Parts: sequence; structure tokens; C-alpha cells
Amino acid sequence: MRSFIHDDFLLQTEAAKQLFHEHAAKQPIIDYHCHLNPEYIARDHSFDNLGQIWLEGDHYKWRAMRTNGIAEKYCTGKETSDWEKFEQWASTVPYTMRNPLYHWTHLELKSAFGVDKLLNPNTAKEIYDECTAKLRTPEYSARGLMKKFRVEVVCTTDDPIDNLEHHLALKEEGFEIKVLPTWRPDKAMAVEDPVAYRAYVEKLSVASGVTISRFSDLIEALCVRHDFFASVGCKLSDHGIEEFYAEPYTQTEIDRIFNKVYGGNELLKEEVLKFKSAMLHEGAVMDWEKGWTQQFHYGAIRNNNTRLFNQVGPDTGFDSIGDFNVAKAMSRFFDQLDKENKLAKTIIYNLNPKDNDMVATMIGNFQDGSVAGKMQFGSGWWFLDQKTGMEAQMNSLSNLGLLSRFVGMLTDSRSFLSYPRHEYFRRILCNLVGNDVEQGLLPASEMPFLGEMIENISYKNAKRYFDF
Amino acid sequence: MRSFIHDDFLLQTEAAKQLFHEHAAKQPIIDYHCHLNPEYIARDHSFDNLGQIWLEGDHYKWRAMRTNGIAEKYCTGKETSDWEKFEQWASTVPYTMRNPLYHWTHLELKSAFGVDKLLNPNTAKEIYDECTAKLRTPEYSARGLMKKFRVEVVCTTDDPIDNLEHHLALKEEGFEIKVLPTWRPDKAMAVEDPVAYRAYVEKLSVASGVTISRFSDLIEALCVRHDFFASVGCKLSDHGIEEFYAEPYTQTEIDRIFNKVYGGNELLKEEVLKFKSAMLHEGAVMDWEKGWTQQFHYGAIRNNNTRLFNQVGPDTGFDSIGDFNVAKAMSRFFDQLDKENKLAKTIIYNLNPKDNDMVATMIGNFQDGSVAGKMQFGSGWWFLDQKTGMEAQMNSLSNLGLLSRFVGMLTDSRSFLSYPRHEYFRRILCNLVGNDVEQGLLPASEMPFLGEMIENISYKNAKRYFDF
Amino acid sequence: MRSFIHDDFLLQTEAAKQLFHEHAAKQPIIDYHCHLNPEYIARDHSFDNLGQIWLEGDHYKWRAMRTNGIAEKYCTGKETSDWEKFEQWASTVPYTMRNPLYHWTHLELKSAFGVDKLLNPNTAKEIYDECTAKLRTPEYSARGLMKKFRVEVVCTTDDPIDNLEHHLALKEEGFEIKVLPTWRPDKAMAVEDPVAYRAYVEKLSVASGVTISRFSDLIEALCVRHDFFASVGCKLSDHGIEEFYAEPYTQTEIDRIFNKVYGGNELLKEEVLKFKSAMLHEGAVMDWEKGWTQQFHYGAIRNNNTRLFNQVGPDTGFDSIGDFNVAKAMSRFFDQLDKENKLAKTIIYNLNPKDNDMVATMIGNFQDGSVAGKMQFGSGWWFLDQKTGMEAQMNSLSNLGLLSRFVGMLTDSRSFLSYPRHEYFRRILCNLVGNDVEQGLLPASEMPFLGEMIENISYKNAKRYFDF
Repeated sequence: MRSFIHDDFLLQTEAAKQLFHEHAAKQPIIDYHCHLNPEYIARDHSFDNLGQIWLEGDHYKWRAMRTNGIAEKYCTGKETSDWEKFEQWASTVPYTMRNPLYHWTHLELKSAFGVDKLLNPNTAKEIYDECTAKLRTPEYSARGLMKKFRVEVVCTTDDPIDNLEHHLALKEEGFEIKVLPTWRPDKAMAVEDPVAYRAYVEKLSVASGVTISRFSDLIEALCVRHDFFASVGCKLSDHGIEEFYAEPYTQTEIDRIFNKVYGGNELLKEEVLKFKSAMLHEGAVMDWEKGWTQQFHYGAIRNNNTRLFNQVGPDTGFDSIGDFNVAKAMSRFFDQLDKENKLAKTIIYNLNPKDNDMVATMIGNFQDGSVAGKMQFGSGWWFLDQKTGMEAQMNSLSNLGLLSRFVGMLTDSRSFLSYPRHEYFRRILCNLVGNDVEQGLLPASEMPFLGEMIENISYKNAKRYFDF
Repeated sequence: MRSFIHDDFLLQTEAAKQLFHEHAAKQPIIDYHCHLNPEYIARDHSFDNLGQIWLEGDHYKWRAMRTNGIAEKYCTGKETSDWEKFEQWASTVPYTMRNPLYHWTHLELKSAFGVDKLLNPNTAKEIYDECTAKLRTPEYSARGLMKKFRVEVVCTTDDPIDNLEHHLALKEEGFEIKVLPTWRPDKAMAVEDPVAYRAYVEKLSVASGVTISRFSDLIEALCVRHDFFASVGCKLSDHGIEEFYAEPYTQTEIDRIFNKVYGGNELLKEEVLKFKSAMLHEGAVMDWEKGWTQQFHYGAIRNNNTRLFNQVGPDTGFDSIGDFNVAKAMSRFFDQLDKENKLAKTIIYNLNPKDNDMVATMIGNFQDGSVAGKMQFGSGWWFLDQKTGMEAQMNSLSNLGLLSRFVGMLTDSRSFLSYPRHEYFRRILCNLVGNDVEQGLLPASEMPFLGEMIENISYKNAKRYFDF
Repeated sequence: MRSFIHDDFLLQTEAAKQLFHEHAAKQPIIDYHCHLNPEYIARDHSFDNLGQIWLEGDHYKWRAMRTNGIAEKYCTGKETSDWEKFEQWASTVPYTMRNPLYHWTHLELKSAFGVDKLLNPNTAKEIYDECTAKLRTPEYSARGLMKKFRVEVVCTTDDPIDNLEHHLALKEEGFEIKVLPTWRPDKAMAVEDPVAYRAYVEKLSVASGVTISRFSDLIEALCVRHDFFASVGCKLSDHGIEEFYAEPYTQTEIDRIFNKVYGGNELLKEEVLKFKSAMLHEGAVMDWEKGWTQQFHYGAIRNNNTRLFNQVGPDTGFDSIGDFNVAKAMSRFFDQLDKENKLAKTIIYNLNPKDNDMVATMIGNFQDGSVAGKMQFGSGWWFLDQKTGMEAQMNSLSNLGLLSRFVGMLTDSRSFLSYPRHEYFRRILCNLVGNDVEQGLLPASEMPFLGEMIENISYKNAKRYFDF
């Protein structure tokens, strides 16, 4: 019997196979949005064992385990060993059939470790030992894994106050893979908690060397840091927002609101909206001035479970999909920038797939012919980063925009083992296009153009678009 | 030519056929949510004819008939005979092609009556006569039909003031099929009409033996009835709500609101929301104390057609899908219970499929490892109880949660002929999984595990989960 | 190699081929909603070249070109020639693969011009010349094209103040194809801009001969024009609305609001809603009185790009899909009319596909048996007028209503070359039904009925429903 993950995994047609093997598979990886720890790359971190590299910080797996009736101590607990956690995970894996975790798990086992066995309680020990042994060799260090997967560029996610020491060290060292920071100023907008906000602004003041006593100082401090990020090679910003903010405001109002929150006072809801509107706009202008690409990840509801938030903190698997109405605000936000001729290249990622078609048409309103695919509909994000989600995103983009100009996949991951998701994406993309050829929806005579299109979406569009 | 409903109906692959015939088809039925009249079971009701059993109270069929240009008198009219109604229904059936009614109709004819003919004006009389003759035999009484379909448990839907006499009689008699009540306290929350509400509360007072003069009395009366339901074997509650209610409130506010409405005064919108928030919460705590499972059916807009509501009353086919935004309230509602460690096992049913992915991720926020699949995304409800709707629900659940832990199908039906919908569901489930195997999305080597998974979703998960 | 657009394009099964070739393809075309310029028909306009007929006013193509990095001057610019624009369009065409434009383009080349070549920079000149030569022959005039595609009826879209001179001329002349006006009173509701509104109402006064000084005069003037439209053969109205408006209002309020806006004062948001509610209702009553069908196209957000709106005006490709919640207002709007027994035949078109299932169930609330398919769910509109969008609409309608009673396709187009979209629709419809037959979801024995159903949806239902 053929192994589960084989050469033609997900490729249903001859056209798909040809597109994948002759075009997609040959492209290097540009991972323009991820959450890797740059320190791990700078000091070329090695992983102790498969349990650690897989389960530390992986909220996808924790959610599946909790759903499967596994106690919290095997997810986030400090009292259980890596092996104990892994064992519980292995017992959960068969129950994840039809969930992307089942594919990711076996793709990672196959692509990274050459393991063909299916993970379950019977194979757990054997797989753990084999992979752990490999992880302890130089080939499986942080850098080793990046090279193994032919990574060319990664963009991490960084706070404006970050000193980017690891990015600088890697640059100085001349590490062959570009490791670039991404500007993620979410905390500079997080005015809901005045005390935490003040503390953050004070740190920003220190980092920038700008004394901050009013709103314009805040912007100046951010500008200083923005310049610094640019000097380290940053080409993208990123914003994690519930909704788009585009309330009308005056400078006087924003000055007053900043003073109020900086003085320790809670803001009214309307004030929060105005302040966030101002901040989003100011940040967007900075990005445009630098020629960066701005990313917006919107629509999550975070920290839904207070009890477990208090116990294990944020980003531990208690976030989910919201159902906000955002079209009008999104329109106003981009329109305002466009009116000022200051709309940067943009990628929008929605978390609720009900928004797919809305987003795919919204970007069309601001395509102005200046750059092919200037406004991008981002690849299936987070919960949507699976076959159905990626297909839905690509189908909406195809029907309502130009798939051919899509900058393609990113991992959004904290793990050095996630690069096979680019392979997963490419297989799904090739399969989609191959099915169209097979069904006569695309002309078979155009396979050369389609091959080029696949190369573009897999790698070349991103390289050109971000100017790496 | 093979008959329309044949052994492999809906089963497109060899894997699907194997999963269905060797696993799904062998399982008994647990119908944990329906609207059967328990009196019909208690006195083992016999049906006069096929027109009566099919058309009395079946708003699905009425809607189709009205759309087909059939006059109201053939739907709900008292002046037309069962045969006249049936004749009009038979003339409509061909026009329902691609609607689930076409499948349901022929599945019921085949599974219950062994009829292979397609229903249309030419076959109407013959089919009517054949089935009517069978219906008059003991094999086709209420109990006969339940036995024919190998039903093990049914949970009806009952008001807190119901005396459950028929459930009690069946229990006493030792009827081999468990017929259990479900706690549905919608009327205890229906404060929009103060007069009707007062009348209901007075009946509740009589039923419970608790004098009700303030909010705490209301809760006490409900507790008395809740205990009574439990004593009769109730294991589930159910709530039909437009939206989730989780407004902040104080006990003082709720006391005042209750007094206001009980005194005959209309409540403000904000008061209604607060009151419903309080009631939903109190009810959820009761369910948790008993170890019951709570169900929420949300998102319908009912009684859209005032003219026909006045003419033929509620539940006659004038309800439809709403488009509420509910994620944040839903999150707050469950979070509040979870914070108090009082979150019962829960099933959420949405009526608008745009919410599928939101619900499938929302449940993940409150999976706490205590029970496998503690939080459930309910099977396609009402308008979504059809092939596309069920597939969409199972695909969302698969992609965003664990399909393997799903408690599966329920009929939600008023009819003793609806049990083939379990077969329909199982065929669709097996087909979905079989297709995945055929396409290599699931490993063919895991057919034994998949067979077990199919048995679990068809029957065993429900048995364990509800503790029947 | 078979040409891209061949006899069995999109038809995957034998059943689909049979349904299309033996039933769908034989039907004439009723295009009951379009934006053709009636003057072009009246004077039998001839087109200069392929660039002109394809690119003048086609915002779909402009959007694709802008997305492909083509400068505005090649879209809407007056300084570039038709050939220069066409050349840029031809260079964009390969990049539209998977977008409906790729199919539309080659369907039009094949069906109208018999051109089998794929359009790209290499074939651009040759195709341009060949088609341009044909366009200059009588066979390719406005009327020639309509006859070529066997058009029987077209309904244009017209303002109440339009004098319908071209419709009248065509009627008088006895032109064999019915060219009927459609009542589109959007400007009579556009109270957001008091100055423009006053100017419009004054023109309406002139057109109707009614002096307008208060609300009842406005309605009287509209009635006069409504009667006039009816006398010219109008059978449909159409309303382009963001949302449904069904706010409660009193006649006194509406009188006051009209006076306020007519006096040049901006209205409050609440006043706008009340006024639009009144206007929608009054218009709906007029349509009911005449036995017309009313159409509602809702959910677009228009003119998102202020900079380019100022540069190139409305309807130039800067509109997109909104995400409004409309179910409750939609329900109230139709319920109010139904209560008064004044609900006309109705077609609802939504722009956001998240609403498909909601709309498909909403219409069911007002099907009253008086006319088969009285309430219609309109075919995929604008952005949704593509294979995925049409399939989604037909699947929702099938699952939740009766596909068999669907009045089918319309082009909604400004172009005399868009008739192949009826062919496209019919192929997709036949393919959908054919797949069901092949998969055993519909009985193969019922092919005669299905053939009739295809003929009905392609042509006969519309003929009966609109009473052409």
C-alpha cells in the first residue's frame, strides 16, 4: 500500500501533477508572515525532542486535545513531561481525521523526518524516538530546518519597541536566509487598559528616545522606530484588529483622547474608536511613505475563556471567529488614504469566511493600476488555513479578482516545522487549477501559462511584490 | 432500471458503501431531539391514511405546495379531505426535485412501506391506497413504526408546566423504547406579551405548587418542575432563541423587571434583554447541576406572515432564517457560566449557515478536557437539515473541531415517519468520509478506525454523551 | 485539440448534454432585466470596432485591468484609442483565468463571431480585425445581434422621467423583438442630497404635468408616470437599495420630511429611513395595482473610491459587496404589503452570497399559492453572476424552495454582446441537474420531466410569470 503522504498527495489530475512537480515544487519559500522567534535563528536553536518542538505553544493541537477529553496538564501544564504530552497528542491524532492537523502532522513527519508511519498510540514511541534523534543533529536545528525547506526569506512579527538585536546579528553575520522584522504596533493602539497602555508608551519613549507627553510625540516616537525597522530591512507592517476603524475625528479630539488615557482614565467606546481610527491611519501613512506593504488581520474574538485565560494566558487556544460587519468602515478607511494618495500596498486577511466575497470585491475598489495586485486578499488565515478555507479564498479571489496576481502562502506559524504548509498550499492550488483544466474550465493548451502562473503564486509574485 | 432509492443511494465510493453497510446501517437510533406527541406513543396511535400522517402539521410540505401555486385550503384547510390534500401534494412532488422533500418522500415510501414507485399525479392513488392499507395494520402504529426503525431512545420537547403523564405512563408500563421528556422553558422567557406571560406564570405556579410573586419564586417554581422532569428521566434542555442573551444585569434590576411585566406592563427592549439574559443563565445553571445537556436553537425569525399567522397560527411554514450577529454575546454567555464552573454539556444549533464556522470555533473556546466533545456543534437544523446543509456542518466541524466526537443526528420531527432521516444522515456521512478515503485525504489503511468513527457518530457517541 | 468553447463546454455528464442540447439550447431568450440603451435599438446602432463594443462602459473589464497593473487611461481615458485599450485588455485576458471574464470573453468570441482562438497579446490584432470587420456588417448591428441570439423580449432600465421615446418608436414601428421599459425610481428616493433631489423632483413635475408641493403630489406625479410606463408595455419595476427599509412612519411624519428635504434641508438618518420606507411601500403598492413584478437589487456599497469617482464618475468599477443585516426589515416590508393584500410578484437579488439561504427562506414566507413561484430568489447578480455564484444561488433555491419554478437568467448588461450569458447560465444549470442524475440524486427515469423543467427555467417560466 502506498504511503499516506506520497508524491501525488492531493493531486487528483494529470494537469495538477504536472503543475505541482514541474513548477510549484521547484520554487523556494518566501514566508512573508510568521511568528518565529528570531533568537532561535540567531543562536541556531536545537530542539530537545519531538514533543517540545510540536507541542510547545501550539494552540491548534491543544484545542484538539481538549476537545478530545484530554486534561489541561497535558496541554499547557508544567508538571507533565514532553513525552507525556506527546503521548496524549498521539492518542488524539486519529480523532483529528478530517481536521487539518491530521494532514499537517503527517506532512511534517514525512517532509521533515522521512517518516511514513501514521501517528497513533501504537506508533507514538517509535516515532518520538526516531524524530527526537534526528532533531538532535545539526540538520534539524532552527537554521538546518530552514535550509532543508529552501527558505529564502522569513518575516517575523515584532513590536515597535523591540530592539531587533537578533535580526541585526543575523544581518551582520550575513546569514544566507533573509530574516526580516515586521512592524506590528498593536500595543500602541491598545487603549482599553489605561495602566498597561501608559506602561507601554513609556517603554516606547525609552526605545525611541522621544519624550512622550502628547499625541504628536507618540507619533514621532513611532516614526523613529519605524525608521529603525526600515533600516533593519523591514518591508511589512501588520495589524491585528477586531474590526476596521474609520470614524471621523479631529486632531483636537485625538489630542484630548490621548491625554485622557495617558492620564490613566478609561476611554468611552466612541473615544476608543476615534483613537484607533487615528492610529490606523497614521500608521498606514508611515507604511506608504516607506513603500512597505501593510497587512490587516481582522475579525478574531480573543480570550473568550476568562477562567483559562487567568490560568494559562493569551494565545493558548481560546480565540475564535467573530461575526462583525466591517464593509463600510473598511471602505472608508482605504478611501481616506487613497484620497490623500497615500494608500500603501495592502493585504487583508479575514477570519470569518462569510466575508470572503466582500473582501475579494473590496480590494477591487482600490486597485489603481499602479502595481499589479496592489490590493491583496490574503491567504486563508488561522482557522481558515486548511484545504476548504484555502480553496474558498482562492475561489473567491478567482471569481472576483485575479488569482494570477496573488502573492500566495505564508505560514503565520511559531514553529520551524511548519514549512510543509507551503507544500500543502501549493498542492491545493495545483489541484484546483488542474481540476479546471481537466473539466475544460481552463484551456489545456494554456498549460505553459498556467505553469508560470503557479510559479508566480508560489514564489515569484511575492518576490516582486514585496521587493525582496 | 434500478429503483431510485436503492441499497447504495448517495454512496459514491466503495469505501462509503463499506462504511455504511458494515457500520452505520447496523446501529440503532437515538433520536435525542424531536417533537413527537408522547400521547400518540402512550396510546399507540394508528394513522388513518397516508395523507394524514404526511400532511398534518408538516410545514415543509405546505411551504413547497404554496410555492407551487397550491391554495391554502389544501395545506391547512379544514374543508378539504386528506385525499384531496394528498392529491395536491402528489402533484407538487415532481416540482420538488433537488429539494430535500423529494428525497425524504421517497426514502419514507421505500423504508417504511417498501414502495419503489415515484410519487406523482399518476401514481398518487395507487401509492395512497397501498400505504393507507399498511398504516391500518399494527406494524404501522406509532409504536410499530418506532420498532420498525429500531429506535432505542426518543426525547420529546415539553413545557415545564406539562404533567408528563404520557412519559410517566410509558415508564410505568415498561415500554421497551425510552421516551424521555426535554425541558423547553421558552414560555418562561416570553415576556414580550405581559398578559400572556402572566397567564403562563400562573399556570406554572399551579403546576409547581409555588406561589409566585417575585423573581425568586419564579426560579423556585422552575426548579421544582426541573426536579420533576429529572425524576421522569429528562436529560436535556432546549431553548429556541433568536439571539444569545448575555447582557450584564443586577439581581435588583431583574426583580424590578419581573415585577413590571408581571404587573402587566410592557418592558423596554433593554429590559427584555436583561431579563432573558438572567433567565438563560439561571436555566443553564440548573442544567449543569443535574448533569444535563443544554441545547440552543438560535437564529430563526418566526411568524413573518401576519396575515397567515392570524389565519392558521404558528408553526405553519412562515418562519425563516435570520441574520443576527451573535458571536460576542454567545461568548459572554458561555464564559460567564464557565467562570462559575457551571457550564453544562452544550449543543449549539444555528439556522443561518453563515454562522457555521463561527459556531464551530466558538465551541472550541469552552472545550475543557472534562468530557470528549463537551461542547457540540449541532447537526444541520430545520432549513439546514438537508444534504448540502449537513455536509456544510460536518465539514466545518471537521475543519475546526473534531468530527469524531460528534453526537450526530436527530430528527427534530413531529412525524413517526421521519426516522429515515437518520439513514439519510448516515449515508451522507459515510459518503463524505468515503470520498475522502477515495481521494487519499484519509488513509485507506485506517478503514477499521473510520468504521468505528462512523458507528460512534451514528449512535455510540450519543449514547455515551447523554448517558442513556 | 478541441477548441476551448465547444459544444459540450461545461457539460460534464451525458444527462447534462442531453438536457442542454435537446432542451435548453432550443429556447429563445427573454432578457427581463438589462441596461441596454434603447436608442441603440431604435436607430439600429452599428459598432465601430471590437474595442468599442467591449470596453466602453464595461467596468468588469476595467477592474480586471486595474488589478493587472494597467493605467487608468487604458480603461476610461479619452486620450487613448479603442485599439490601444483593446491591446491592454488582450494582455490582461490570460491573467483573468479562473475569472468569469475569461469564459465570457471566449464565449462571446465564439458565439457571436465564430472565433475559436484564445485572446492574448499574440492573437489580439488578428481577432480585433476579424471581429471589427464583422461588426461593420448589418448582421452585427444592435438589432442584428439581438436576432442572432434569438432574443424575444428585453426589458431596459428607465427613470420615471424618461420619455421612453425609443420604446414608443419601436412599438410603433412594430419591431419584432419586444423592447419594454422597466420602472426604476431610485432617484425619487435619493433624499441624501437635497439640492439634487429638488432638481429631480422638479423634472418629475414637468414630466408628469403635476405641480409638486407636498408628498401626496410627489406620489401623484409618480402615479402618472407609472401609468405612462404601463401604457408603453412596462411589466417590471426595479429598485437598487443598500438595505430594505421598513421603519414605522406616520403620514404626518412623511409630509414633514418631504417638506424639509424639498426645502433644501439635509435629513437626519432616521428621517431618511422613514422616507425611504414610505417610498418603497408606495411604489410597491403601485406595482401590485398594475400586476407588475417588482425587483429589489440590494446590498451593494457604491462609489467606494472618492478619488476615482471624482475623476471618472459612477458605475466605473468602484462598487462592491456590502455586509448589511437585512432579514428583519425585509420581513417587515413584505409583511406590511401582504397584510394589505397588496404584495406584488417579487424578485429579490442579494449581492452578498452570505445572504443566499436567508433570502431563499424569506421568499417562502410570502408564497401564498396564488401564483407558482410568486416570490422569486433572483439569479446571481453582478459579482455573483459567475459559475460559482449561480450554482450557489440555484443550490440554495433548490434546497430551500423550488428550483422548478425559477424564472431564470437575465443579463443585467449594457452590452449587445452579453447574450451568451444566457447560454452560460443554461449550461451551468444543465450541468448541475445532469450531475444530480449521474450521481443518483435525481432519478434517471425522470429525464422527460427534467427536460421540461430545464425549458421552463430557461424560458417558459419567465414567459408565463411576467405575462409577456
